Parts: sequence; C-alpha cells; structure tokens
Amino acid sequence: MNYYPTNINNKFELFSEQWQPKVIATMNDYEFKIAKIEGEFIWHSHKETDETFIVIKGEIEIEFRDGIVKVKEGEIFVVPAGVEHKPMSKKESQIMLIEPKGVINTGNIDSNNLTAKNDVWI
Amino acid sequence: MNYYPTNINNKFELFSEQWQPKVIATMNDYEFKIAKIEGEFIWHSHKETDETFIVIKGEIEIEFRDGIVKVKEGEIFVVPAGVEHKPMSKKESQIMLIEPKGVINTGNIDSNNLTAKNDVWI
Repeated sequence: MNYYPTNINNKFELFSEQWQPKVIATMNDYEFKIAKIEGEFIWHSHKETDETFIVIKGEIEIEFRDGIVKVKEGEIFVVPAGVEHKPMSKKESQIMLIEPKGVINTGNIDSNNLTAKNDVWI
Repeated sequence: MNYYPTNINNKFELFSEQWQPKVIATMNDYEFKIAKIEGEFIWHSHKETDETFIVIKGEIEIEFRDGIVKVKEGEIFVVPAGVEHKPMSKKESQIMLIEPKGVINTGNIDSNNLTAKNDVWI
C-alpha cells in the first residue's frame, strides 16, 4: 500500500483567502487545520474545548480579557476551553489549528461574514 | 495575567536522550510531545488511538507491514489506530507527537529498555 505524508507549507500555496481554516489531516475526532490570517478577528470562546495554535509563518497575537500573548513562527499556544480570546495578526500569518471536528471558528458568536464552513479539506 | 507561548525548537535544546518523548503542551486530554529519534524502533501498535507525527527537523521513515512512508521536515503523518508500525531515522531527527495522554510509546509491546516514562514535561 502507498502511504503519503502531508507537507504543511505546500498546502498554504493552494489557497489565498484569510480566516477560512482548511483541514489537512485528522486524528481520531480531531482535525489539523491551516489558515492564513491578517487583521483582527472577533472576540469569541469555545465552551467545550481547548484550541491549539501553532504559528507556521509570521507572528500573531491572541488577546484575552486580562492579557495578551504573542505567538511567533515555530511556537505553540493552547487557548483553554471557555476563555474569551481575539486572534490577530498585523501582517498575514500562516497558522495551524488543532481542535475537535465540528468546532466553529467564531465559537459562541454568530457572525455571518466571519463564520467559516467546517470540514473543508485542502 | 501573563501568557507565554512555547517555542518548539528551543525545547529540543533542553535534552539529548533519544526515543524519550517529553510533553510540551496539553489540549483537552491530548498531549504534544517532542522526541529525538535515531535508528530503528520496534514494531508496535496503539489499538485505541491514532498517533500524529510531525517532523520538526530531519527525516524519518515509518514502516508498515505493507508499505513505508518517508516523513520530512515540515510534514505531518497520522498513523491510524491499531496499525502496526516501526518508526526509524537514519540520522537523528526531531519530531513532535500528538496523541491522548497515557499512550505508551511502545504500544502493545512490553519492552523494558524502550518503554518511556509517560507525562515527563520539559
């Protein structure tokens, strides 16, 4: 049988839209998603799950109600379940998100223009 | 409150032993572990869970009973639950593993000299 790895950087070359996570791999009921982000997202939280951010390229900030964290290329940060956060990136950054299948990118906030389709593979 | 990211590369500078995964982050009941590997591991499987490999530096091979996959720097590969596999690396490579807490590195095989302690943080 043939087995193939997935090259994370190469997957970023296949799309240009921002804030629209694309699935590149699954593990049990979790998904590995990649996204290009730039500017400020909205405040939201995911009541039921932690959310992992790994910065593949660039530098992002995640704001909390009581602080902020800067996450640079090659760094990982896990946002705890239920904690309000607002991701942002001054210039376009490339990130990988790891979280259970079915998590909505805008969490508890219903936002027509920012809520992304789920389970979009690339 | 102060929030800090974890730099994955920097964590590899803190240890030298091979085949001994160290936890660098948790997400729900999952762990992100890093390891240095070189040479051949043993055949084993994890009946209850998929296991994610991300190569941070170097190049590894994962052998299956019916094939093999080469995973290079910046690539991700998920070994399905229950599938026998044997990781190996000709030169020392640095990898990140993602799997549920409590998974034994040697899976279904009891190997005194290769079975690593679990939940060792670095």
